[in-house]
Amino acid sequence: MFFSFGGCKTEVFIEREIPRLAQICEDFFKVLLVCDENTSSIADKIAGYDIPRCVLKSGEENKTWNAVETILNAAKSAALGRDGIFIGVGGGVIGDLTGFAASIYMRGCRLVLAATTLLAMVDASVGGKTGFDLSGIKNLVGSFYPAETVYMPLDVLSTLPAREKKSGMGELIKTAILDGDDFLDKLPVIADCGFPEKLPNDELLRYCIKRAVLYKGGIVSEDFKESGKRKLLNLGHTFAHALESAAGLGSISHGEAVAWGIIRSCELGYALGITPRARAKKIRSVISSFGYQCSAPFPHTDINMFLEAMKSDKKKKHGKLSFIVPDENSACLVELASESEVNVLTKIIKGEFPL
Amino acid sequence: MFFSFGGCKTEVFIEREIPRLAQICEDFFKVLLVCDENTSSIADKIAGYDIPRCVLKSGEENKTWNAVETILNAAKSAALGRDGIFIGVGGGVIGDLTGFAASIYMRGCRLVLAATTLLAMVDASVGGKTGFDLSGIKNLVGSFYPAETVYMPLDVLSTLPAREKKSGMGELIKTAILDGDDFLDKLPVIADCGFPEKLPNDELLRYCIKRAVLYKGGIVSEDFKESGKRKLLNLGHTFAHALESAAGLGSISHGEAVAWGIIRSCELGYALGITPRARAKKIRSVISSFGYQCSAPFPHTDINMFLEAMKSDKKKKHGKLSFIVPDENSACLVELASESEVNVLTKIIKGEFPL
Repeated sequence: MFFSFGGCKTEVFIEREIPRLAQICEDFFKVLLVCDENTSSIADKIAGYDIPRCVLKSGEENKTWNAVETILNAAKSAALGRDGIFIGVGGGVIGDLTGFAASIYMRGCRLVLAATTLLAMVDASVGGKTGFDLSGIKNLVGSFYPAETVYMPLDVLSTLPAREKKSGMGELIKTAILDGDDFLDKLPVIADCGFPEKLPNDELLRYCIKRAVLYKGGIVSEDFKESGKRKLLNLGHTFAHALESAAGLGSISHGEAVAWGIIRSCELGYALGITPRARAKKIRSVISSFGYQCSAPFPHTDINMFLEAMKSDKKKKHGKLSFIVPDENSACLVELASESEVNVLTKIIKGEFPL
Repeated sequence: MFFSFGGCKTEVFIEREIPRLAQICEDFFKVLLVCDENTSSIADKIAGYDIPRCVLKSGEENKTWNAVETILNAAKSAALGRDGIFIGVGGGVIGDLTGFAASIYMRGCRLVLAATTLLAMVDASVGGKTGFDLSGIKNLVGSFYPAETVYMPLDVLSTLPAREKKSGMGELIKTAILDGDDFLDKLPVIADCGFPEKLPNDELLRYCIKRAVLYKGGIVSEDFKESGKRKLLNLGHTFAHALESAAGLGSISHGEAVAWGIIRSCELGYALGITPRARAKKIRSVISSFGYQCSAPFPHTDINMFLEAMKSDKKKKHGKLSFIVPDENSACLVELASESEVNVLTKIIKGEFPL
């Protein structure tokens, strides 16, 4: 699949096997592999032999400037020039960090991603958002920098921990809600078949990933820098990012936070008269079938820290908080302006506004 | 003057007075002023009253991630959203740091620069190159991110230290060499009038700055990401960056290093049969008239460290070092390929190849 994001071309390959370095590039002498402790063995399979490599600590809590600096210094040690290629092998965190480092090393080098988690395949690796967390705020710092090629080797998903698979499913559900009930209605069968322990069959898995990539790629092609339609992809994310920050970055998986945030968005949308009750209930039912935390408040989370984190959200504009809420068959943007609307928000976070 | 760099519009104002905040933007509540110890009083005049401000330590040796992080945290403390405006008040270092921070805060905010040094006016503030130094390599990390508006208040130049004025003159000479002898021949009169203690008269000063901005803006409009013609602006810079790194970042001013580097480029160009001897001698004579160090090696500089720094230069491609050397009436790119050419380079740095 080909996409054009902000004038840059991205090609996506959904295949069974892990790609080999010879497929990825011709000149092995200008490559830096970036992976984490969990994806080092996948990087081995890609490299085949000794290639400069930077192994980072895994987890959202390590998505910091320190990690970016480690990549930049590894690139310098490998004597990479402006035509160097950064190959990120991992999930969303590795993709975001490698992409950011590639975007600023010598003011921008080449970037290739091998997505090794469901979350990275259905969401993070496509669309060019890179970044890291600063002062406890998720992705406070970053760039728009699409990879020239993204590989999605399905084989790697079978060994993924259940928590990781569930995290990816959160983003897949989000995309299905945006794409419409035709897609959303295909998901409960995955839960019924024993997900996250069992993955859906090959055909369904490939269908879901491809459809998610096509949907996201289409939106991002139209609105690369998120001035309009791309904001829809933040469904559930204003709540999710605040939850992740309040709980301590890394302690709740991103997809789990997104799933919980989507239900809060349904409640907000319903309170504002935008989300039909039937759709809100259907969405909650799909999310519940995958075993996510559905009710608010999220256990062991400080409400005040949550509200504080929400105020720092970067989707804020003109001082107003914005949210994406589900509508009849997709979702739309709302900005909370009045005092009473903000009060509803507080009730929702406290769990005092169930559907 | 208007320019379009990579699809972004930059407007440049060359005026006498320091701009006021009301001229720069309408909404004072989304502004962060960034300055250093030396430009804090200029920032006072811009702000008029209390506006969130970040005061950095001055000097190239402080052009590090720490400074960038200080700006980002100040922006977060000021609750800047994506529509926030970073206003950089200072010379090249403040411009590079503020521009870089603005390019990555929430994946990109608005950027305005008030250039307060001759160097920033004739070169650094126009064209969108931002960055900072890492591991002793100048501008190893950065982005292409043009300011939407650049103010050049000539009044501030009169109180500039002589070292700063000389630094700016180095870049002005560079631009004049590229633009042709018609411009270059106008410069010796400035030296004759007592520069750097005395500035040229208003008319000549404005003429030189405007012509330098027009030349650079024209080049960058054609080649924003430096894949072709923009490389010419690096005349003298491969030598200059290596000299600055070898001497210890901050100990030699950038323009002084550029002036010295241009003479080395003349020697290299002459050795390769590209720079006519008469033009090389004229260039050396202009540079000498301003009192720059002309002969090699540069005093108190380790030749081995110099060569090492040169090998890490980011203008390297396919492992080959590239240089801009003067030709008949401008300059052109050369790549050193053969062993004997690299040997000439070593001789030039050691001062064993005078014109």
